[in-house]
Amino acid sequence: MHHVFVTGAAGFIGSNFIDRLLAEGVRVTGWDNLSTGQIRFLDGANQHPHFRLIRGDNMDLPALKNAMQGADFVAHFAANADIRDGWKHPEKDLQQNTMATFNVLEAMRENGVRRIAFSSTGSVYGEALVTPERPTPETDSFPIQTSLYGASKSAGEGLIAAYAEGGQIDEAYIFRFVSILGERYTHGHVFDFYQQLIAHPDHLRVLGNGTQRKSYLYVQDCVDAILHVARQATAKNARHHTQIYNLGTPEYVQVNASIGFICAELGLTPRLDYTGGDRGWIGDNPFIFLDTRKIQETGWRPQLTIAQGIVRTLRWLKANRWVYDTRH
Amino acid sequence: MHHVFVTGAAGFIGSNFIDRLLAEGVRVTGWDNLSTGQIRFLDGANQHPHFRLIRGDNMDLPALKNAMQGADFVAHFAANADIRDGWKHPEKDLQQNTMATFNVLEAMRENGVRRIAFSSTGSVYGEALVTPERPTPETDSFPIQTSLYGASKSAGEGLIAAYAEGGQIDEAYIFRFVSILGERYTHGHVFDFYQQLIAHPDHLRVLGNGTQRKSYLYVQDCVDAILHVARQATAKNARHHTQIYNLGTPEYVQVNASIGFICAELGLTPRLDYTGGDRGWIGDNPFIFLDTRKIQETGWRPQLTIAQGIVRTLRWLKANRWVYDTRH
Repeated sequence: MHHVFVTGAAGFIGSNFIDRLLAEGVRVTGWDNLSTGQIRFLDGANQHPHFRLIRGDNMDLPALKNAMQGADFVAHFAANADIRDGWKHPEKDLQQNTMATFNVLEAMRENGVRRIAFSSTGSVYGEALVTPERPTPETDSFPIQTSLYGASKSAGEGLIAAYAEGGQIDEAYIFRFVSILGERYTHGHVFDFYQQLIAHPDHLRVLGNGTQRKSYLYVQDCVDAILHVARQATAKNARHHTQIYNLGTPEYVQVNASIGFICAELGLTPRLDYTGGDRGWIGDNPFIFLDTRKIQETGWRPQLTIAQGIVRTLRWLKANRWVYDTRH
Repeated sequence: MHHVFVTGAAGFIGSNFIDRLLAEGVRVTGWDNLSTGQIRFLDGANQHPHFRLIRGDNMDLPALKNAMQGADFVAHFAANADIRDGWKHPEKDLQQNTMATFNVLEAMRENGVRRIAFSSTGSVYGEALVTPERPTPETDSFPIQTSLYGASKSAGEGLIAAYAEGGQIDEAYIFRFVSILGERYTHGHVFDFYQQLIAHPDHLRVLGNGTQRKSYLYVQDCVDAILHVARQATAKNARHHTQIYNLGTPEYVQVNASIGFICAELGLTPRLDYTGGDRGWIGDNPFIFLDTRKIQETGWRPQLTIAQGIVRTLRWLKANRWVYDTRH
């Protein structure tokens, strides 16, 4: 891993991944259309002689092929992550999560890049079908997709696997993330709750009834995990050139508990207004808890608990309230 | 089911499905771009007052929306079925099996059509991961895709499920076919073997070593199964609005056995030239055997065995050698 091509370079996870690579002496080409990415997230990287940013869109295959020249590894983070509003623009998930991934793979083929890491999501499991009250393993039952987001990411996974198993690339690492949080976090429940509490510290509107159980992972732990697995090259001599890992901590929290962590950190005691129902929006999964034994068997461990990650995120948001002034 | 919109109307399965619907008094709008479909397969349907054919392409969403007006059920058969040559034109599977399915769903949303049947494939299971030596159930482990064809069909399934579980349509019936054969069969091993034996009755080139074990289903049994399930409306009051059925007979045959049936029917004893290896092409699955208990529990049974289906197919090909003169 000498020269990594990172899609979604100016995004939350992409920019943190880039900073880590540069700190470790790896050359990086960042690729971002800056539609939701924040150029400020690359302020540090842009000072670095081993970094260059190319502005471009994954739907522009010729430009993508051109930009990827010289890379020996692709980290594909670019995605539409607007999970809740999928039905307002259903083509967006398909384009940005499925067709974009296809273009990344074609650009790899063109440039002879043979290794990829892909940010997928626990949403690909839909709602676990067989025995919901246990952490979901990578080998869970063939799921019924319940959201456009999950369907489009699952389709991206399928394309990557087809390229790897079909001998077009050598190593594919697919990571099914829980929700990631930490520095540069710009959407999700901590972001939304804090935004509300800035505007009105005395009450908080909560989607659903607050009993949804969710899992989160700190972004630096996420970056660690991806690099750890890619460097072990676990796909190299495996039966399948596609290696899939759930990525999260071995725990979950209720939304209500998360509200507790947030309010304690802010010193607030707002009135809680629940919209009701056991899920926050159409396609919301009331229980996300991934079995992470497979990645733990590689020797990786998360450094922060969910509660610590939430507090770390909130502190970053407090110090960077400018992110609320930018459009997403 | 009063007015069915059938994509891939001039194709092998679509045209047989249409003939059945018309015989049962159902109104049909057929939709086909005639890129691989055979207009002759609709000779009978075109005589029928309840049938109209609209020539158009699934990638043309406005035309598709327009053509679907008035339908109350969609049977989506149109697909790229050129499984072996996926790597020559990788965008073809993505466009014709994934994006086309998305367009069909969007046209349904536009027209308020709430029910769909979709022809998927056992290829979505990739190569069964856990215990290969048993029939693959619908709830098998979350597969690693091994072909573009399987990946693109799996992606189509995922989109349909997302629409159904997201409340955009009411009932989705997904059928994972084994290879279908019978009247109007225009590609596959019986087609290829007979073509060879017409040209040179004394020898036969066999991809792989002949020990691949495959499953087949007679097209009239396939049509029966789809109508049987759609009329039972099994998705209507189920936990999931997406109902997935493996579709095949409860048996498989070795390629070598199939060669035996074919040669016996033709009265030939060719020399067999094997290309070798345990699979015929990149992405070929050496063992396809689906667990069909779920669909059998609805009361459906196939009428022909695999051997009977192969012979029936061969007799149709013998009587319709013109299909070898058309380009596919």
